[in-house]
Amino acid sequence: MPRMAGSKRERPPTQRRNREAEVVEAAIDVFWRKGYSAATIQDVADHVGVLKGSLYHYISSKEDLLFTIFDESHRQAQEIAASVRAADGPAIEQLRTYFERYVRWYLDNVERVSLYLNEWRFLTGERYDTVVEQRRVNERFVRGLVEAAQAEGDVYPDVDAKYACFYILGAVNGIPTWYRRRGRQSPAQIARAYADMVVGTLRGTEPRSAPRRRAPAGTV
Amino acid sequence: MPRMAGSKRERPPTQRRNREAEVVEAAIDVFWRKGYSAATIQDVADHVGVLKGSLYHYISSKEDLLFTIFDESHRQAQEIAASVRAADGPAIEQLRTYFERYVRWYLDNVERVSLYLNEWRFLTGERYDTVVEQRRVNERFVRGLVEAAQAEGDVYPDVDAKYACFYILGAVNGIPTWYRRRGRQSPAQIARAYADMVVGTLRGTEPRSAPRRRAPAGTV
Repeated sequence: MPRMAGSKRERPPTQRRNREAEVVEAAIDVFWRKGYSAATIQDVADHVGVLKGSLYHYISSKEDLLFTIFDESHRQAQEIAASVRAADGPAIEQLRTYFERYVRWYLDNVERVSLYLNEWRFLTGERYDTVVEQRRVNERFVRGLVEAAQAEGDVYPDVDAKYACFYILGAVNGIPTWYRRRGRQSPAQIARAYADMVVGTLRGTEPRSAPRRRAPAGTV
Repeated sequence: MPRMAGSKRERPPTQRRNREAEVVEAAIDVFWRKGYSAATIQDVADHVGVLKGSLYHYISSKEDLLFTIFDESHRQAQEIAASVRAADGPAIEQLRTYFERYVRWYLDNVERVSLYLNEWRFLTGERYDTVVEQRRVNERFVRGLVEAAQAEGDVYPDVDAKYACFYILGAVNGIPTWYRRRGRQSPAQIARAYADMVVGTLRGTEPRSAPRRRAPAGTV
């Protein structure tokens, strides 16, 4: 990982970690408001309330800071995946649980997620490659569950798992474009609605050649 | 519309229209490759193979050119909506037809659509307001069809039409992030798969309180 380490540690480790977290949170806010290209390290320093020079105790460059945000986000998403992998049950229900937690995390961290979706092109070299590979790890996890759900008979065999994953991840990745905190429905309600739609997409998409299923029960 | 008109028309109208279309196509290519902020009118002129000054016969500024691209795209999307409105049949099938045509248009115009989704924030003033309103027109059209499908009993009453629209439009708007021309499946196949998933999302999403429907027929 291209992070500075060692040489400048004057503070006790806990204090250092707290200050580093504060720098990352400030960077999320600044990059999100101004856009990564327009934002400067000076803006981040002003937000933290320290001199620019002292930020370099924690990060080596603006790009390093962006990478740190992404790397943390990836680890948070991986924790959600791990919590779902640890649970038993049919793959379709693991997908429901995963997307309920994942969407909730999106809603609770919408600025961070918005950066992740929009600003990754600004990374270069090894950092870029790492983030692209991290995205693939997440896509492979979802794809594996979709294929397992298909093998378990909860998705029609003719549904293309690859496009189903693109479709579902697109639906979820669209959240930051419309979500505003303090809307009418709670994050928990929205996360639940989205998780149900993911399951609905998979269960409900039938090939055109298949016989039409009956209309849903209980509708007018 | 903030377009220059009248004063500089030296060419016959048809020739003028052809050249204007050529300028717009060149701008799509240049803006897409370089990003709108980094691209210049000089780049567009170089692409067309004319002097920069002569572009101002057709457009008044770089922003005007971006707006022209968006305005054209909106009209193209509106034509698809109109073709669907003209057809009879249940709303759920109108949605299928609409998304099959709309996704096909996305795939055939992926550079244009990618600009539309990523660069609209660079518009200002009246142009910005116009594009935001045009997006709402499209969202209202889809929302109207989803609500009609719900009224016709093809979507569970507990499904929230607003979030269903966000979810579906997010899924479709994600296409430019993964689509590459000359992939394994044809644009027609992908458009069909997406349209079926839209219908699947709507038909297949059941509230958690509802009785579970039987597993899809014909699966293992």
